[in-house]
Amino acid sequence: MIGPVLPSSGVSTPLGLDAVRPAPGFWGDRIGLNREVTLAHCRERMEREGWIANFRGELPRRGRESSDAEVYKLLEGLAWADHPALPELAGVVARAQEADGYLNTRWKHARYTDFEWGCELYCHGHLIQAGIARLRTHGEDELTQVARRAADHVCDRFMDTAETCGHPVVETALVELYRATGVERYLEMARRFVERRGLPALGDVEFGRGHFQDDVPVRRASVFRGHAVRALYLACGVVDVAVETGDAGLLEAVEAQWAATVARRTHLTGGMGSRHFGESFGEDFELPPDRAHAETCAGIASFMLAHRLLLATGDVRHADLAERTLYNVLATSPAPDGESFFAANPLQARTPAERAPWSAAACCPGNLARTFAALPAYLAAADGAGVRIHHHTPAEIRHAGLVLKVETGYPWSGRVAVTVAERGTGPIALRVPSWAVGATLSYGETRRVVAPGYAVAEVDGGWRPGDVITLDLPVVSRWTVPDARIDALRGSVAVERGPLVYCAESAGDDPPLARVVVRPDAAVEHVVDGAVELDVKAALISGAPTGWPYTAEMETPDEEPITLRLVAYHRWGEHGPATMRVWLPVDTARSRYLEEV
Amino acid sequence: MIGPVLPSSGVSTPLGLDAVRPAPGFWGDRIGLNREVTLAHCRERMEREGWIANFRGELPRRGRESSDAEVYKLLEGLAWADHPALPELAGVVARAQEADGYLNTRWKHARYTDFEWGCELYCHGHLIQAGIARLRTHGEDELTQVARRAADHVCDRFMDTAETCGHPVVETALVELYRATGVERYLEMARRFVERRGLPALGDVEFGRGHFQDDVPVRRASVFRGHAVRALYLACGVVDVAVETGDAGLLEAVEAQWAATVARRTHLTGGMGSRHFGESFGEDFELPPDRAHAETCAGIASFMLAHRLLLATGDVRHADLAERTLYNVLATSPAPDGESFFAANPLQARTPAERAPWSAAACCPGNLARTFAALPAYLAAADGAGVRIHHHTPAEIRHAGLVLKVETGYPWSGRVAVTVAERGTGPIALRVPSWAVGATLSYGETRRVVAPGYAVAEVDGGWRPGDVITLDLPVVSRWTVPDARIDALRGSVAVERGPLVYCAESAGDDPPLARVVVRPDAAVEHVVDGAVELDVKAALISGAPTGWPYTAEMETPDEEPITLRLVAYHRWGEHGPATMRVWLPVDTARSRYLEEV
Repeated sequence: MIGPVLPSSGVSTPLGLDAVRPAPGFWGDRIGLNREVTLAHCRERMEREGWIANFRGELPRRGRESSDAEVYKLLEGLAWADHPALPELAGVVARAQEADGYLNTRWKHARYTDFEWGCELYCHGHLIQAGIARLRTHGEDELTQVARRAADHVCDRFMDTAETCGHPVVETALVELYRATGVERYLEMARRFVERRGLPALGDVEFGRGHFQDDVPVRRASVFRGHAVRALYLACGVVDVAVETGDAGLLEAVEAQWAATVARRTHLTGGMGSRHFGESFGEDFELPPDRAHAETCAGIASFMLAHRLLLATGDVRHADLAERTLYNVLATSPAPDGESFFAANPLQARTPAERAPWSAAACCPGNLARTFAALPAYLAAADGAGVRIHHHTPAEIRHAGLVLKVETGYPWSGRVAVTVAERGTGPIALRVPSWAVGATLSYGETRRVVAPGYAVAEVDGGWRPGDVITLDLPVVSRWTVPDARIDALRGSVAVERGPLVYCAESAGDDPPLARVVVRPDAAVEHVVDGAVELDVKAALISGAPTGWPYTAEMETPDEEPITLRLVAYHRWGEHGPATMRVWLPVDTARSRYLEEV
Repeated sequence: MIGPVLPSSGVSTPLGLDAVRPAPGFWGDRIGLNREVTLAHCRERMEREGWIANFRGELPRRGRESSDAEVYKLLEGLAWADHPALPELAGVVARAQEADGYLNTRWKHARYTDFEWGCELYCHGHLIQAGIARLRTHGEDELTQVARRAADHVCDRFMDTAETCGHPVVETALVELYRATGVERYLEMARRFVERRGLPALGDVEFGRGHFQDDVPVRRASVFRGHAVRALYLACGVVDVAVETGDAGLLEAVEAQWAATVARRTHLTGGMGSRHFGESFGEDFELPPDRAHAETCAGIASFMLAHRLLLATGDVRHADLAERTLYNVLATSPAPDGESFFAANPLQARTPAERAPWSAAACCPGNLARTFAALPAYLAAADGAGVRIHHHTPAEIRHAGLVLKVETGYPWSGRVAVTVAERGTGPIALRVPSWAVGATLSYGETRRVVAPGYAVAEVDGGWRPGDVITLDLPVVSRWTVPDARIDALRGSVAVERGPLVYCAESAGDDPPLARVVVRPDAAVEHVVDGAVELDVKAALISGAPTGWPYTAEMETPDEEPITLRLVAYHRWGEHGPATMRVWLPVDTARSRYLEEV
């Protein structure tokens, strides 16, 4: 099995890149674009920025302290894509490794002198993940040896210390390397890194130790906090350690933190990280749409965590959040040409914004590239004798002789048709998202309403070529209201349709989104370039007093009725700089509005 | 005349420390506490932090790149207070000055190698301001000579370059030194610093050049932006240059920027700076109560700017904002003991917060100390033959023979009684704040309703001892609603009373402020320790679903009626860590509420 996460136990086992082949469709197209365009774009930009030259020893060294990790993410992406550019780049990296396995272009002359911000174990972790990808797609070669030597170095250096890295990721990398190689010290090293964090293991910093989750031991924490990517990568490692060591208490701790975070610190899009300051989680119910950082990398990390929790527990809530994040964060970041990206994914843009081809930090493009390259391995799982499809997209799925062809226009439409191409046995489970109340499942003579969760099709005597299982999901627009405790969203509503969050966008301030109020009534659908857009009833409130903005009386504003076009959030800004908002103020003068129309 | 801002022209001339003597009362008490406690507290902490030892050449140097400026702010405060601790500290500073006038403990071996972040001209600017304070309160001495040499160095080094400092303040310092000494090159240097900024004069940084107002020349900017303290100090210097050079266009530009900022980027408290990220102004109408940075130093800078604009234009709007900021930012920062401080002044605290005695950055305590020490010079002005009282607080005011004694319980009560103690002539103008509709002015046989602005009392034949002018301001509680475009405040209201913003605070989550909704009905007043507190009708909405916080329907929550106690915002957190909120959600189930009570 070929994939980034292959636990030795759990409720279900992921089907890998060798078992799931995407076909043209929402995700197949993006996976192809990633392979054909984004990987090369990242390679070219990292060369231009000097991040690759750093491995050649060129001076002055360029890039941030963590730039080595970007090159490793690219290597991981190239590995999952079995890309011919890998060996040359791997060779450049390999030649920079020191005799004892240490590899870092920034700190080679000052090893481990800044655990808080140095990112050395973080970089080693991404190197190990690249090696795992290569090992599983290709087998042992130069890159896998580099990764193993790096992991051995980490174990030699840190097994018996109290130290750890300000930026987690090595934990999950070490567990996966244990899974890939069977070398138990990698698991033990990961376990120790998890357990020593929060004792504390790091120095204090301006942001506080919570920034890198060193404020509280992981078993005692109640919610994710601090830097969002750090918190979520750490949680991935915690799940991995818990699964491989059979530590139910540890798994319960991270599940509870996840549940609290989803209930109180997660944006409608699945985006995590409310603050630009510290790129961090905010407090409970601190979920500003405009200042949401909701970094693409945090979305990737949350997706990775939800996938791990889903495999470990089988709880469909994790698949629901994974899907939400996939369609509304991961799909949002890259432009349709695969060469520019959103790093932050706010739910409101007051001034025009657009994707950028690169940035000095640019952690997101390489992270997306490795994730999209491995994405087929996140879509379906083996569940005992059966197949379980978590995410619906056109693909061919193979398991134990059974070959299934999935055809669907999802997420734009709700029909998912699974045709048996080669015979096999066992139940076939299709996920029914939490919003899909009234979904139906049909196969053979069976047709029944299925509840959110997993709809399971089973036949006596096995599946035969030509058998079709059809899941019909009610993909229609719906209005969504926020919890009353989310102060920043009071009096506003949003539109969702299937797994997609919608938004209003505006180029050239037409319409002026600062003056829009909506009437939560039925939306009218339009298909534009294969995507569904929605028209809702709205009004423009009268412009602007220009003095002190706090007054004794709320004047009822004049209103001009308009029709407001909404597009899927992941498509905003595709046609150039635009303002945008997901959460739309409700027309508080509705009665007046009704008189006018 | 003794004061920090003495323009050579303008609508009115400030009365200085020699003309205005505060008596016990709201501000007199704070000015006394500052002199007796806070100045010594700052001295002790700066010694402990090593910021003073840096001037003695002790190694390693400690503190941030700008820490010299903190010592200069303290010196300025000691100077205004005519404090006996000044000469010794001034001597320590003087001995660190180099032969050519340059003085900086951080950069002495690498002068002017980091204009963006180095703060060298910023530090020189505060040194000059300390020297001006000493010159005006005491006359020439060692400190004034140090300041003059520093100013001469700055002129020598920068008069004919295109460079400037990433942190403004030297502009306003140089103009004031010109006012104090008549040396015209100081004014010319300030003028050039103002004009070269935005060409641009500085390198690009992560935050963008807008961070230090170098994105657009000052004449072409439309609103304050970037780092709030930098933007506001710069604007002070711009007003000063415009006034002294008679540049009406420049003054109009900064007035327009001020008006746009007040209308769209200012919190109810007068606090400025919506973002912790970059300590910066947000976009228009980005005014989150919870994440408001609203730094104390930005409040001081805004107060300084409003004072300058008031003197230059006579427009009472500037006095209104100055008062709002004075009572709700500057009065909020220090604890009643004068030894701990809020640096940020958000309008909501979801988790318990309290003032801190000091911090690694700690720019605010010294800035407050110098401002409170000079505060009497901000309270009143000479306006031709007359006296104009901007801020009502117990004090004795002298001008041209006339001696006035001001007695008032303001801001807790609305009566201001001005008694003539020594005879004199000319109109006496008392400010009527913008909220004070229905105020009355009484003297002699006269009693009339006066509109917001200035209420002017005049008598034929001059004022005689025992004459009393009484201004009655309607200090009663009022509900305030936000502009509909402030997304973060939608559906919420606040309470103000006179110049004071009120808030709910809660220790131990009793009441739980996350679940409070209010009914904007008449408030009941209570006097507690001389301060007025308010009870309003409110309810606790039912607790918490615990899952995904975005749902298809807004359920009408259960409500439990409560009485909510509000205190003046500047008093929150005085009794230990507390949660707090200024903006209170309106009870949307009011009809239901009415049935229950």
